Amino acid sequence: MIEKVNVADKFARFNDYWRPKIIGELNDFHVKAVKVKGEFDWHHHETEDELFYVIAGHLRILLSDGEITLDPGEFAVIPHGVEHLPIAEQETHILLLEPKTTVNTGTVSSDRTVEVLDRI
Amino acid sequence: MIEKVNVADKFARFNDYWRPKIIGELNDFHVKAVKVKGEFDWHHHETEDELFYVIAGHLRILLSDGEITLDPGEFAVIPHGVEHLPIAEQETHILLLEPKTTVNTGTVSSDRTVEVLDRI
Repeated sequence: MIEKVNVADKFARFNDYWRPKIIGELNDFHVKAVKVKGEFDWHHHETEDELFYVIAGHLRILLSDGEITLDPGEFAVIPHGVEHLPIAEQETHILLLEPKTTVNTGTVSSDRTVEVLDRI
Repeated sequence: MIEKVNVADKFARFNDYWRPKIIGELNDFHVKAVKVKGEFDWHHHETEDELFYVIAGHLRILLSDGEITLDPGEFAVIPHGVEHLPIAEQETHILLLEPKTTVNTGTVSSDRTVEVLDRI
């Protein structure tokens, strides 16, 4: 049974920030929906590249040597090993595409680390 | 150097149908943009799951036991091994997410098979 996913419907189902939800799965990858607001923690992923696709709002991704800004309809891939800090001044809705092994805080463990992700 | 991708800009760069273009890469996956119109060929992929995310237009994906219809903001994952036939009555813009090994016509080789994908 193959079900389609309406992205807006998924975002309507939760309100917490910085806690990605799994909304799709294919081979060794997950598609996740996450709402963010404020500043996250600097981190990197050991082996996982990470795609940020903005659905609503505006996302800044600080890098050690610059910054990427994303509006709705734009995405960027942060390669593994690259330190980054996501920041959103307003509530921002993001689709994440990344290997299933990805932990949201990368190699850093903090109170923002989500060990087990919800599926919605 | 990390570059952001504006999806609409990518779709403005080509006009051919059923020939996916690579617009992003992360680990063993590609993100592709494809414009479709009309009916494709029945096919399946041996090992690759395939995600169709509709950006504009309307996509029908016929399956052996049913059909999925996708409007903008909706996606579906067609698991490997599942025969499917994409159809679009009007020009439709799709983001594809799939392993780099994916061939557009799956296990079938035809004049629609794209051996080497353009990067745009």
